[in-house]
Amino acid sequence: MFRTHTCGELSPKNLNENVSLCGWVQTIRDKGFMIWIDLRDRYGITQLVFDEERSSKELQEQARTLGREFVIRIEGKVIERSSKNPKIPTGEIEILVEKLTILNESQLPPFTIEDETDGGEELRMKFRYLDIRRNPVKNKLIFRHEIAQKVRNYLSNEGFIEIETPVLIKSTPEGARDFVVPSRMNPGQFYALPQSPQTFKQLLMVGGMDKYFQIVKCFRDEDLRADRQPEFTQIDCEMAFAEQEDILNIFEGMTKMLLKDITGKDFQNFPRMTFAEAMKKYGNDKPDTRFGMQFAELNDLVKGKDFKIFDDAELVVGINVENGAEFTRKQIDELTDWVKRPQIGASGMVWIKFQNDGILTSSVNKFYSEEDLKKIGEKFGAKAGDLMFIMSGETQKVRTQLSALRMELGNKLGLRKPNEFAPLWIVDFPLLEWNEETARFHAMHHPFTSPKTEDIPLLETHPENARANAYDLVLNGNEIGGGSIRIFNETLQSKMFDLLGFSKEEAENQFGFLMNAFKFGAPPHGGLAFGLDRLVAILDGNEVIRDYIAFPKNNSGRDVMIDAPSEIGKEQLDELNINLKL
Amino acid sequence: MFRTHTCGELSPKNLNENVSLCGWVQTIRDKGFMIWIDLRDRYGITQLVFDEERSSKELQEQARTLGREFVIRIEGKVIERSSKNPKIPTGEIEILVEKLTILNESQLPPFTIEDETDGGEELRMKFRYLDIRRNPVKNKLIFRHEIAQKVRNYLSNEGFIEIETPVLIKSTPEGARDFVVPSRMNPGQFYALPQSPQTFKQLLMVGGMDKYFQIVKCFRDEDLRADRQPEFTQIDCEMAFAEQEDILNIFEGMTKMLLKDITGKDFQNFPRMTFAEAMKKYGNDKPDTRFGMQFAELNDLVKGKDFKIFDDAELVVGINVENGAEFTRKQIDELTDWVKRPQIGASGMVWIKFQNDGILTSSVNKFYSEEDLKKIGEKFGAKAGDLMFIMSGETQKVRTQLSALRMELGNKLGLRKPNEFAPLWIVDFPLLEWNEETARFHAMHHPFTSPKTEDIPLLETHPENARANAYDLVLNGNEIGGGSIRIFNETLQSKMFDLLGFSKEEAENQFGFLMNAFKFGAPPHGGLAFGLDRLVAILDGNEVIRDYIAFPKNNSGRDVMIDAPSEIGKEQLDELNINLKL
Repeated sequence: MFRTHTCGELSPKNLNENVSLCGWVQTIRDKGFMIWIDLRDRYGITQLVFDEERSSKELQEQARTLGREFVIRIEGKVIERSSKNPKIPTGEIEILVEKLTILNESQLPPFTIEDETDGGEELRMKFRYLDIRRNPVKNKLIFRHEIAQKVRNYLSNEGFIEIETPVLIKSTPEGARDFVVPSRMNPGQFYALPQSPQTFKQLLMVGGMDKYFQIVKCFRDEDLRADRQPEFTQIDCEMAFAEQEDILNIFEGMTKMLLKDITGKDFQNFPRMTFAEAMKKYGNDKPDTRFGMQFAELNDLVKGKDFKIFDDAELVVGINVENGAEFTRKQIDELTDWVKRPQIGASGMVWIKFQNDGILTSSVNKFYSEEDLKKIGEKFGAKAGDLMFIMSGETQKVRTQLSALRMELGNKLGLRKPNEFAPLWIVDFPLLEWNEETARFHAMHHPFTSPKTEDIPLLETHPENARANAYDLVLNGNEIGGGSIRIFNETLQSKMFDLLGFSKEEAENQFGFLMNAFKFGAPPHGGLAFGLDRLVAILDGNEVIRDYIAFPKNNSGRDVMIDAPSEIGKEQLDELNINLKL
Repeated sequence: MFRTHTCGELSPKNLNENVSLCGWVQTIRDKGFMIWIDLRDRYGITQLVFDEERSSKELQEQARTLGREFVIRIEGKVIERSSKNPKIPTGEIEILVEKLTILNESQLPPFTIEDETDGGEELRMKFRYLDIRRNPVKNKLIFRHEIAQKVRNYLSNEGFIEIETPVLIKSTPEGARDFVVPSRMNPGQFYALPQSPQTFKQLLMVGGMDKYFQIVKCFRDEDLRADRQPEFTQIDCEMAFAEQEDILNIFEGMTKMLLKDITGKDFQNFPRMTFAEAMKKYGNDKPDTRFGMQFAELNDLVKGKDFKIFDDAELVVGINVENGAEFTRKQIDELTDWVKRPQIGASGMVWIKFQNDGILTSSVNKFYSEEDLKKIGEKFGAKAGDLMFIMSGETQKVRTQLSALRMELGNKLGLRKPNEFAPLWIVDFPLLEWNEETARFHAMHHPFTSPKTEDIPLLETHPENARANAYDLVLNGNEIGGGSIRIFNETLQSKMFDLLGFSKEEAENQFGFLMNAFKFGAPPHGGLAFGLDRLVAILDGNEVIRDYIAFPKNNSGRDVMIDAPSEIGKEQLDELNINLKL
């Protein structure tokens, strides 16, 4: 046995006990007559002491050979500390070392192993194993484990069965690009890595396994944006003989349980909002409802006053910033520049100030009288001291632009508090979205999503207006999960494939096995998937998912620590019946 | 809500309740005046009844349109059954149906959905979603889930953290073949799928995460033998600051917990046996100790009696079959033919019968007197009525042959009882094994396995004799897990790579990142991995792992249900910068 205790557990209760500890040398303070060493392991830090009076000369000399991050084992006695450190649990004791064993030496690490390190992102990724020694990274990985365990226990207790679906599956062109795997035993053929276990979980429903879940790796070969990973983890679920309400209840219960564990507070039933309402009120299908600034639509108030920009716009819409009248002209100009950046793409912005003296003034005083401004202010519910921003243009675009401004203001004004949680269901998503580029409909959720029964006739006349039995769970402005009730009828599924522009052959080739399965008594079913990486980050008051992944890849899909991907040998390529195309 | 209850839960307690149930039509019995339908879901079967007196004509007619595996929803009243079925939990009640909704029709399934089906393996795999409706398959998947949950909870309670390691990693030529994944974003480069998370878990130890586990998919592109899957699941674990004893204790505790849950019995501490002893006593490093027939080595008794075959043999060794004297001459001949098959490869076999009359006779009476035979019998501890089989040859070969015979006899004589469990640790494995083909040493466990401290000097002189701190857990003749204490010292690891014939460049290229990590304070560590598929099968009294995998692949690595692997398009190949080599 290497150790009797960890470095995080000794207290005055253990005084005078002989103990052995193992860990890494965090700091060494050598005052000549006395040497203190902070010994660190996963559980905490314990102070070791060597002194002229009580330690042998050899032992002191040995202690002086130590360096940062050396791995040592010590034996010694727990004694009371003269100057106590109330900041750490072991701060009342220290160990008078009697025996010191150096288990391994260490080169000087390339960055400090401290909560605040001097190492940049790239260096920390290259030496991720050293980064993981730091509390912030270590704690995030432990937090992730705890969330995953709680999810598994919750779902198991609800009668869900975790079933592993295969990783080596069949390539389907729908959605993002697949990663593929050449098959040596089947020359010229390839497996694909799953973008999700979607079809397998539906087959499990056909198989009668009416409550399925899996915490599972999924893969997408996308051009990586910041904080997108080619491999990511889903909490994937499906239920048979369940309606939307049953599914929302189960996963609302799960999320409440997690939120209660984290905050200690009981959460009320989550609010629900239709997609249409979310777009109207927040310009966004994943609104952060921790703060207000709901949109006010102003067409009826602002048009016909000779302000051409508003007159020409499909939609004039704004938000009210409480106490925003304090914004300086410079701050307002900066925000205006911000929305005019190409990433946002607005052509400009109108402001109205509700001064503390009760007078309303604006950047468009030329067109709007104070009476006009007052009516607009009333629409916003603005009060003295507030500031309104108004944008205009094509409905969908202006909503997106104003939503970006709203989020920016939320960040700037500190309204997005990391330890506050505002969960929200978004329901009644559109079934389809029109893709300009390909000039065809795409499934908004996926091709297996069921239209609302009352909207099925619309598929013949106005498919773009058909709503789906699809839902997202939004937390603090992030989509943490989403799902739908699936089509379980072969005929309706065929019609969907038609609408999505699949030929019979394509549909047969890609989803034939699912369509076949539906011929043998498919039950009604639906489900959802949570993104575990994101869920964990947001529950921990963070939005950077990379921190919650032990060994993440960078934006080029590289693991810089192990240097992957990498070249493989000619022999291996030959065996796989492929050539490089150079 | 589709249902108020499942098909497995109604009992006389629910009499007269109005309920709704959903499920599949298992059987229909139509007696004219009465129709009975067995309705099945994941939880059981409930009998539905329609009759002339109490059901409307329309309802009866509707019931007559149903076929096997139709998916229906019914509403009705729980009533007492006149002829009760004590075999099923719901056997005392039935439902007088008031409303019937056909949720989906079904074609006639290609095999019967019964515990004993008429479907062959291939057909069942092609329609695996129907196979999963059958109790034996469904129950195995649920059993697997339960074992995995218990393992996770046990390890979490022991302070282990489940950490997900990446699936897209770097190809390393050691061991079996890697599956590789061409990287679109890094042309000419490939990821590999992990054969195990070995190096990552060691890096986590360097990272201070001193108790790691993961239930994780692993991949090996091997020529598939029966019951080998290209993707399989491991319970993967690693501990730092732990000695072999600590590791064995944790995982013995885990296995005891599982065995107790299954059998209701407390298991004593698992016996331990060295590799050398296992080879000597059972000819095998994973002996099934549910039955005896330990080997007896006979060189000192049989040599020098002019029986050339024994005189020339390196080892003469046998087993004693209790009460085997009843074997007919035909049975003995069959066994002799069996060991002479090319798969076993023995040249023959000698038998000695300890007749019930106390006389010993043998197939080599010409060379051995009854006195000689008596001494041999004593060595075996044989008694009247027993039968001894003796084989001879080169030590390793003859042990393997005799071990095969022992297992065959164990099977034939019903000594391998599925509901009995004989766990056993095998320890002190050799560090290296000589590979004739490549004329170099291979690591018996893997290249990171630590030699026993006292055997390190042997690395210079007789590396083949060095023992490793390596251990396997054996259950009922199957290796269910194995592991080792790892090398954590850079110098010793370099020496190992030398011994294994890696050049400095190869070692650097393949394991450089691990060697680098070891420079920054690697703690002593070790671990092990259990094969989940096999563990679950054996705990369930079975040896066919395929049954415990929801969607297994066949012996050509194909998923015949989804028809994978399959061809991919030219465009996709182009994007990946590869060509097919035809």
